[in-house]
Amino acid sequence: MCGVFGIFGHPEAANMAYLGLHALQHRGQEACGIVSTDGERLYSHRAMGRVQAAFDPQALTSLHGDRAIGHVRYSTAGGSHLKNAQPIGVDWARGSLAVAHNGNLTNFEALRDRLEARGSIFQTVADTESVLHLIALSQVEDPEGRIADALGQLEGAYSILFLDERRLIAARDPLGIRPLCLGIIEHDDRTGYVIASEPTAFDLIGARLVRDVLPGELIIIDEGGMRSSFPFRRAERKMCLFEYVYFARPDSILEGANVYEVRKALGRRLAVEQPLPPGEGEAVVVPVPDSGVPAAIGFAGQSGLPFEMGLIRSHYVGRTFIEPQQSIRHFGVRLKLNPNRAAIEGKRVIVVDDSIVRGTTSRKIVKMIRDAGAREVHVRISSPPTRWPCYYGIDTPTRAELIASTHDLQEISQYLTADSVGYLSLEGLVNGVRSVEAPARVGTPGGSTPPGPDSYCHACFSGSYPVPFTPSSPPRHLRMLP
Amino acid sequence: MCGVFGIFGHPEAANMAYLGLHALQHRGQEACGIVSTDGERLYSHRAMGRVQAAFDPQALTSLHGDRAIGHVRYSTAGGSHLKNAQPIGVDWARGSLAVAHNGNLTNFEALRDRLEARGSIFQTVADTESVLHLIALSQVEDPEGRIADALGQLEGAYSILFLDERRLIAARDPLGIRPLCLGIIEHDDRTGYVIASEPTAFDLIGARLVRDVLPGELIIIDEGGMRSSFPFRRAERKMCLFEYVYFARPDSILEGANVYEVRKALGRRLAVEQPLPPGEGEAVVVPVPDSGVPAAIGFAGQSGLPFEMGLIRSHYVGRTFIEPQQSIRHFGVRLKLNPNRAAIEGKRVIVVDDSIVRGTTSRKIVKMIRDAGAREVHVRISSPPTRWPCYYGIDTPTRAELIASTHDLQEISQYLTADSVGYLSLEGLVNGVRSVEAPARVGTPGGSTPPGPDSYCHACFSGSYPVPFTPSSPPRHLRMLP
Amino acid sequence: MCGVFGIFGHPEAANMAYLGLHALQHRGQEACGIVSTDGERLYSHRAMGRVQAAFDPQALTSLHGDRAIGHVRYSTAGGSHLKNAQPIGVDWARGSLAVAHNGNLTNFEALRDRLEARGSIFQTVADTESVLHLIALSQVEDPEGRIADALGQLEGAYSILFLDERRLIAARDPLGIRPLCLGIIEHDDRTGYVIASEPTAFDLIGARLVRDVLPGELIIIDEGGMRSSFPFRRAERKMCLFEYVYFARPDSILEGANVYEVRKALGRRLAVEQPLPPGEGEAVVVPVPDSGVPAAIGFAGQSGLPFEMGLIRSHYVGRTFIEPQQSIRHFGVRLKLNPNRAAIEGKRVIVVDDSIVRGTTSRKIVKMIRDAGAREVHVRISSPPTRWPCYYGIDTPTRAELIASTHDLQEISQYLTADSVGYLSLEGLVNGVRSVEAPARVGTPGGSTPPGPDSYCHACFSGSYPVPFTPSSPPRHLRMLP
Amino acid sequence: MCGVFGIFGHPEAANMAYLGLHALQHRGQEACGIVSTDGERLYSHRAMGRVQAAFDPQALTSLHGDRAIGHVRYSTAGGSHLKNAQPIGVDWARGSLAVAHNGNLTNFEALRDRLEARGSIFQTVADTESVLHLIALSQVEDPEGRIADALGQLEGAYSILFLDERRLIAARDPLGIRPLCLGIIEHDDRTGYVIASEPTAFDLIGARLVRDVLPGELIIIDEGGMRSSFPFRRAERKMCLFEYVYFARPDSILEGANVYEVRKALGRRLAVEQPLPPGEGEAVVVPVPDSGVPAAIGFAGQSGLPFEMGLIRSHYVGRTFIEPQQSIRHFGVRLKLNPNRAAIEGKRVIVVDDSIVRGTTSRKIVKMIRDAGAREVHVRISSPPTRWPCYYGIDTPTRAELIASTHDLQEISQYLTADSVGYLSLEGLVNGVRSVEAPARVGTPGGSTPPGPDSYCHACFSGSYPVPFTPSSPPRHLRMLP
Repeated sequence: MCGVFGIFGHPEAANMAYLGLHALQHRGQEACGIVSTDGERLYSHRAMGRVQAAFDPQALTSLHGDRAIGHVRYSTAGGSHLKNAQPIGVDWARGSLAVAHNGNLTNFEALRDRLEARGSIFQTVADTESVLHLIALSQVEDPEGRIADALGQLEGAYSILFLDERRLIAARDPLGIRPLCLGIIEHDDRTGYVIASEPTAFDLIGARLVRDVLPGELIIIDEGGMRSSFPFRRAERKMCLFEYVYFARPDSILEGANVYEVRKALGRRLAVEQPLPPGEGEAVVVPVPDSGVPAAIGFAGQSGLPFEMGLIRSHYVGRTFIEPQQSIRHFGVRLKLNPNRAAIEGKRVIVVDDSIVRGTTSRKIVKMIRDAGAREVHVRISSPPTRWPCYYGIDTPTRAELIASTHDLQEISQYLTADSVGYLSLEGLVNGVRSVEAPARVGTPGGSTPPGPDSYCHACFSGSYPVPFTPSSPPRHLRMLP
Repeated sequence: MCGVFGIFGHPEAANMAYLGLHALQHRGQEACGIVSTDGERLYSHRAMGRVQAAFDPQALTSLHGDRAIGHVRYSTAGGSHLKNAQPIGVDWARGSLAVAHNGNLTNFEALRDRLEARGSIFQTVADTESVLHLIALSQVEDPEGRIADALGQLEGAYSILFLDERRLIAARDPLGIRPLCLGIIEHDDRTGYVIASEPTAFDLIGARLVRDVLPGELIIIDEGGMRSSFPFRRAERKMCLFEYVYFARPDSILEGANVYEVRKALGRRLAVEQPLPPGEGEAVVVPVPDSGVPAAIGFAGQSGLPFEMGLIRSHYVGRTFIEPQQSIRHFGVRLKLNPNRAAIEGKRVIVVDDSIVRGTTSRKIVKMIRDAGAREVHVRISSPPTRWPCYYGIDTPTRAELIASTHDLQEISQYLTADSVGYLSLEGLVNGVRSVEAPARVGTPGGSTPPGPDSYCHACFSGSYPVPFTPSSPPRHLRMLP
Repeated sequence: MCGVFGIFGHPEAANMAYLGLHALQHRGQEACGIVSTDGERLYSHRAMGRVQAAFDPQALTSLHGDRAIGHVRYSTAGGSHLKNAQPIGVDWARGSLAVAHNGNLTNFEALRDRLEARGSIFQTVADTESVLHLIALSQVEDPEGRIADALGQLEGAYSILFLDERRLIAARDPLGIRPLCLGIIEHDDRTGYVIASEPTAFDLIGARLVRDVLPGELIIIDEGGMRSSFPFRRAERKMCLFEYVYFARPDSILEGANVYEVRKALGRRLAVEQPLPPGEGEAVVVPVPDSGVPAAIGFAGQSGLPFEMGLIRSHYVGRTFIEPQQSIRHFGVRLKLNPNRAAIEGKRVIVVDDSIVRGTTSRKIVKMIRDAGAREVHVRISSPPTRWPCYYGIDTPTRAELIASTHDLQEISQYLTADSVGYLSLEGLVNGVRSVEAPARVGTPGGSTPPGPDSYCHACFSGSYPVPFTPSSPPRHLRMLP
Repeated sequence: MCGVFGIFGHPEAANMAYLGLHALQHRGQEACGIVSTDGERLYSHRAMGRVQAAFDPQALTSLHGDRAIGHVRYSTAGGSHLKNAQPIGVDWARGSLAVAHNGNLTNFEALRDRLEARGSIFQTVADTESVLHLIALSQVEDPEGRIADALGQLEGAYSILFLDERRLIAARDPLGIRPLCLGIIEHDDRTGYVIASEPTAFDLIGARLVRDVLPGELIIIDEGGMRSSFPFRRAERKMCLFEYVYFARPDSILEGANVYEVRKALGRRLAVEQPLPPGEGEAVVVPVPDSGVPAAIGFAGQSGLPFEMGLIRSHYVGRTFIEPQQSIRHFGVRLKLNPNRAAIEGKRVIVVDDSIVRGTTSRKIVKMIRDAGAREVHVRISSPPTRWPCYYGIDTPTRAELIASTHDLQEISQYLTADSVGYLSLEGLVNGVRSVEAPARVGTPGGSTPPGPDSYCHACFSGSYPVPFTPSSPPRHLRMLP
C-alpha cells in the first residue's frame, strides 16, 4: 500500500506536498519523495524513512515551482532501497516526466517481457517504471493520448499521478480499486487543485474535498484548468473493502462514506451477528487500539455492554533489537500494548479487532488479557476471515501463512486460546459499508445510483478476484539488486 | 518530570533497564542513560533522545553486571545537553557512585552556595549533583548512614536511586510527592529486585509489583537482600495529584490505585458537577486523545451520552519545521489531531480533556471542532484550574502564562470560544482519587489507614505548597554553558 | 576523471574491489560503488563520498559472488547526487548488466537524441547510460557482438567495464586516451583476473600487473578464461599526457612507464630548458607537495641545487566553512600548505609544480613564500601552459578561466608576482615521457615499436583534439533534477 | 600528547581557536573542544573526532566573546569518551573556570587520594580535573595566587591554559618539558594575545610568534594586559627531545629552533655516525614519509647519495574494517605506504625514519621494500633506541613492548630482516638539537645562555627521568566508566 499526493497552482507547492504526505504517512513509512516543477525543469527529492526525517528546509527549498506530486511507500517486495522510492522521474523525447503510483499491476511481467524485447532497460521496481516506458514508446502523437494509450495497456489496480513541465495528470483504474480524491485549495485570489489517496491530506493544508476521482477517470490539470475523460473500457466499480476495514484513516471520507462511521456500523453488525454467548460475570468490550476502537464503540453501543480501554498502546513503539535471553511472557506484543489490569480483571472480555492475518499477534493478545485476570476472552473481528492474498497493492502474506486459509473457526479459536471467536460475515461487511456509503452518495457525481453488493473487491475474503489473474504464478523479481 | 528504573540481581540487568526505561518513556524524551555494575566497576552509557535511538546492542553489551539504574529525562531548565543526562556517575573516596533522580530540590541554591564555599566544583545541573557532593563530604562513617545524612539535608521532592559497586539504594522524600514502586523479578532460581517510577515498567519485563516505596523510606539492596528504614523526619504523605490527572500511564498503579480507574472516576464526578447544560440537538462526548479518553468514558457512562472519537490522533507526530506562509486554519494542532467531521457535525460536542495550561491548544481544538460543523462546543476538564507553577519536578510555565491564573471562568470560556467550560472541583478531584485509592490500600503496608483529604499535593491548583519555598526567587542558572 | 576496478574469479571479490577502489581514491572522491555477481543475480551498493565511509561490513557482505566491478567518481557536470554514482545496473531482455565508465563521450547528445526518439527514457547522467541503451537496442544476436556494436557507436574517451551474470568485459577506446591495466590475482590454486585504471590498485591486494589493456581492445573474461579482440576501427594511440603530469599516482606504471620516473625526467628537462637565471644568494628547489615532489627532485638533481621541503602540507585538509571576517593573509592556501620559513628565508626559491590552471593558488603560494622571507621566487612548471579544456574526462574549466589561455608568459609572471615563470615545452614533455616509456615497452605486447611523438593526446596544451568535436556547443543538461 | 590554544582580545575568538586547533590537529585527533567567554558566562562545545567534523557554524556561533581556549586530545589511557574531552569547565565559588591541559601529572594519584579524602568527587580523567579541585580548595584569597598555589602542588609535565570570566592564564611546568608559545594577533587597532602548543597555529590565523612561554612561567592576561611571574621553584629546563624528533610539525619553531632544520641536522649526523657500509650497486636514500623526510634529506646531502621517494604515502588513509581472509603480503602497511618499485629495484636502499617503537611496522616496510626488488635494505633512525616509556604525556607502550628495550642491535636487525640497522647516538641527538637551538636563542628572553647538554628530557632513550617517579607503580584508572 502506498499514498500519493498532487497539487497544481499553489506558490508553496512543495511545502503543501510535504504536509499532504505527512497526513498520508499511515499508508507507507518506508520511503517518500516529492517531484515539483516550475514549468522549466522537474526537481526531485527522495529519501528512505518517514516524511519528517526525509525532508529538511533545504530539500524543500530546492523543490521549485507551483506544482508537485509526492509519494509515501510501504515496504513491499521490491526491496527497501532508495532506488525504489517514488516519484520516479525520467527524461524522454518530449521532456521530463515523473510518476507516483499506488496499486499493483497484475500484468507487469508480460508488459516487461514485451518492453525488454523491444530494447527497454529497467532500473527500478518494474511495475511503475513500465508505465513510463509505455508512454515513451507510444505511437500516439497527442501527449495526453499517449498517457491514455499507456494506461490502457495496464491491468490491475492503480491510482496514479503524473507530472511533466506543463501538466498534473491523475488516473484511477476502471475498477476503482484504490481510492483517489480531488479537492481544491484557495490561495489569495487563486484556486489550485489537489489530489490525494485520502482526503485527510486535504484537511491539514486547508484544502476542500470536492469528490472522488471516478473509476476509469483520467484528469488532466494544466494552466487552462481541469479536464476529465473516461478513455478506458467501462467496468463496474470494485472498491477495496479492506480500505474501509483497516487501511484508511478513520477521519477519511472514501466514496462519500466516513470511514469511522463505516467501522462503527461494522461493529454494530458484528454485535448482532456474533453476540457474547450467555455466561456469568461482568462483560466489557475492549478494542485493540487504535484500529479496533470504532468497531468496539459500535459493538458496545449495539450490545449495551461497557466500552473500556483494556489495552494501553505505547506512543513510543518502534523497532527494538532486544531479544532478552530470558523468556518474558508476551514480550513482543507488550512493547506496543499493555493490558490495563483494573479494567479487565475478573471480567468477560470481548476483544474487538479489525482483522486477523497470521494470528500470532492475536494469540499473544488473548493470552496477555487472560494473564491479566480476565475471566473469559471472546475475540470479535469486524471483517470476514482473511483467506486470500491481495494482488492489488496490499502487502499480505501467502495463503499458507493466513491462518484463516488453513484453519477452520474452531481451530482458530483453539490456536488463539480464546473462549470464542466470531467474524463478521461478508454480507454483513458489504451491507455495513453500503449502509453508510449509499445515503452519502445520493446526488454526488457518478453516485446517483447507490453502490450495489457487487461494487466491492472482496478477493482477500472470498478469493473472487475482479481482474483475471493466476495467483499461483510466482512473481518475477528484479535480477539487479537493489 | 523524569523517570527512574533500578534492578539488582538479574543477569541481563542492562537489557532489563533498557526495557524498563522504554516503558517509562512518556516521563521524559530528552535524554536517557543507564549505569550498571559488576561489583568491580561502574559502566555508563548516556545519550540525547529516546531510549530506542540512544542505545544500540554494542552500548548495552558494554554495560556489564547484574545491577543497573537508568533514567529518562524531561526537558527542563538545565538545558538540553548530554552533560545533564542522568544517571550521573562519579568517583569519590569510597569508590564509584551513580545517581538517578526524579523530582526537584527546592533548597538546591542554598546547598550549592554552601558546597561551593567548601571548595566543591559543579559540572552539571546543580540539584542532582549536589546530592553526590553531600555524600562525599558527609562525616558519617557508615556508608548507608552517609546517604541518609545527605538526603536529610534535601528539601523538595525526590524519588532517587543510587548505585555503587555493592548496593542499589532507593529513597523517596518524606512527603512522597513523586511515585516510586518496588517489585521483584524471577530468573531461573534467583529472585531479583526492581524499582521504578511506575509499575508499567515491571509489566514489560515480566516483573511483579510488590508495593510502593513509602514516603520517607530508604531501601538498600545488596547481596544480603533488602533492608528498609525511615531515617528522615516523619510527615504526612503529599502525593502529587497531577500524576493521577495526566502524567502517569493509565495502566499504572500508584499508591494502590489504577490510574485509568481514577481518571474514569474523575470523569464521572465531572459529569455530575459540570453536566451538559440544557439545549437542543444530539450530544456526544469527545475525548482529546489519548490523555482525555478515560475521563471521557467516565463522563459518557455517568451522563448516558454517547462516547465518540471525534478527534483522530496522528501516530506520526513530531517536530515540524514547516511554517506555511499561507495561514492554514488550525494548522499547528492539526499536525497532531484532526476532527472527525462525521462524528461531530451538527452535534452538541462535550470535549473532555485532563487540564488546560496556557489555553492556546484548547482554543485551537474548540475552533477546529466548531469549524467541522459542531452545533455547540462544551469544554469539560477533569481537574481544577491550573493556577500555580510546580516546584517539585513538573515543568509548568510561570503564573503569568497559566490562563487560569490570570482569567476567570467566563474569560476562559470566551478565550476558548467555547459555549461553556467546566472544571472539576478540587474536592471532587481529591475525593475522586481517594475513592479509588482508599479501598485498594486496605491491608497494604503503611496503607491500613486510607488516605485522607490532606494526603495530596495540590499546589498547582491551590497554591498551597507542602514544602516551605519562596516561589518568587529566580533560580540561579549554571554559569558554565553547557 | 574517475577510476574503475574489476575482478573475476576471487572468493572475496567485493572485498578486493573495495580495496582496489581505495587505492584509486585519488581519481575521484565524490561517490563510489560496487556491483558484484554470483552468476545468478547482480548485487549493488553505491554511496556518496569516499570508499571508507561508503562501505561498511554489512554492505560488503551483501555483495555476493566471486566477480565484481567498482567505480570512484570525480565531481563533474552531472551533479552531485547518488543517482549519478556508478556502476549503473539495469535489467534488460538478456538479464542484468552493470557498467562502470572512466572517460567522456563527445557524441553523447547525438546518441541521446537518437535514443529518445526511439522511445528510450533516461534516468541518470546521459553518457554512461546511453551505452546501456545501445546494447539493449542492438540488433546483433551474439551477446559479445552487441557490446562491440554499441561501443562502436561511441566517440570520445572511455575505459569501461561491464558485468553481467556470466562475464566481466573491459574495453578501452581506440585512441587509448584513458589508461586501463590488466593483472592476475592468485588465490589458493585458482588464478583470477583484475582490471583497473592504474596498477597501484593491484599492489594493495597482492595482484600482479600483466600489461595495459591496449587501445581499441575488447577483453571478455568468463568461466572459460579470457578472450581479447579488436573489433573497432584501428587508430594511432593518443594516451593522455596529463595522466603522467598530474593525475596518476607516482607509483603507477602506465604504458610501461613508471609515473614517478616520468615526473623526475620532466623535472630534469625543465631544469635544462628553464634554469634559474643568474643572480646572487643561495638557491633552493622547493616542491609544491605532494604532486610537485618528483619533478622537484629531478630539477634539483639536474641543476645541482639543494632540494628542500619549503612548504609543509597538512594531513588534515578538508572543506572548511570558516570565512574569517578579518582578512588573514594567505588564509585559504595555508589550510593546506604552510611555508617552512627556515628553509626559504633569504634564499632564491625555485618553486616546482606540475601545472597552473587558474593561477589563483599559484599566486597565493608565491606571495606566501615571499612573505616568509624569500629573496626571489621563481616558478617552474613541469608541463606546458594549460590553454584548452579537456573533453575526454578531466574536469577542466573553460578557456576563459585558464590563465594561460588569456595571458602571455610575462603577464602570468606579473599575476603570480613571481620573479620568473618557466614552463616545460610540449616537445620536452613528449620526449620526457617517451624517454621513460620507450625502453620500458620494448618487447611488451603491442609495444615492440616504441611510442612516437604523435602517440599522445596533448589537446589541453595544444588545442589539437584527436577526436573531431566542436567544443563550443553547450552541453545539454538533464532536465529532470536530480 | 595533546595540543592547546588560547586567545584573548579578538572579536572572532572562537573562529580563531577553531583554526588554531586545526593547525594543531597532528597533536591529537581523538576529541577536541573550545570554551569561550564574553566576560559574563563561559560557553563550551566539545566533541569526539577531528576539529573539522566536531564544529559546525552553529556551534561556533554559540561560542560568544572575544576570549577562548581550545584543546585537541590524543587517545590515551583515560578512554575514548566525550566526558574526557577538554577543555573541562566547571562552576565553583568564584564563578566559572575552564582548563585545557597538555602533559601528564606524575603525582596525580597522590593528589587524588588527598582530594577524595577531603570529599572531592571526580567526574573525568583524573589528572586535569584534580587541578580544578586544587584551585577550588585553595586557602589563598587572591585569585591568581590560588592558581599558583594549585600548580605548585603538581609534579610532572604540563603546559596548561585556564579561562575564567576575566582572565586567560597560561603556565608551563618548571622543567618546560612540553612546549608552549606566546604570540600576538592584530585586529583593527587592537592587539590580542595568542598562546599555543606550537607556533604553526599562529601562522594560519595571521598571528606572530613572540617567544616561548618560559619554563616555570605563569602568564596572566586580562583587560589590563599581560603579566608574567615565576612563582614555582626554579629548575633546569628539560625540554622533550621527542618533540624535535617526531611530534612537532616541521614548520614549527620550538625554543628558537626550526624543527625541520633540527631534523635535517639529525640526518646529517646520522650519515656521519651510521654511514652505508661498503658494498656494490647503486644506493638511494628513501624516507618513510612524511616524518622521515627531513632527516632523509639531511642524510642524502651529507652522504652525497640520491634522495628518492621510494615509498608513496596515500592521502586517504583511515581505519579500515577489512581483514581479508586471504593473506595479502604487507597488507596493513600498504594501506598507508606503497613501494615505488622503479625507484628502488636493484638498489641498495637506505630507509630513514625518525624512531622505532614496537618494530612491527618497520619490519613490514623493510620486507615490502625488499619484495619490490631492493638489493639491500639498511635502516637508519634519526634518534637513539626508544627503550623507556614516557610519563610526561606521550602515549608510549610499556617497556616489554618496546623492541629496543628487549633486543640488542643485532636482534633488532634480524627481526626487521634488514641488512643493517643504525641509530643516532644520544650525544648526536642532543648536540644535533643544540646545534640549531643555540645560535637561534642568542639574545632571546631567557636564552642568553645557550642550552647545555643537560637541558633536555631524554628519558625515553636513557631511562633518566627528570621528575622523581616510580615507573613501576601501576596507574590507577577511573573506576567509573566512561
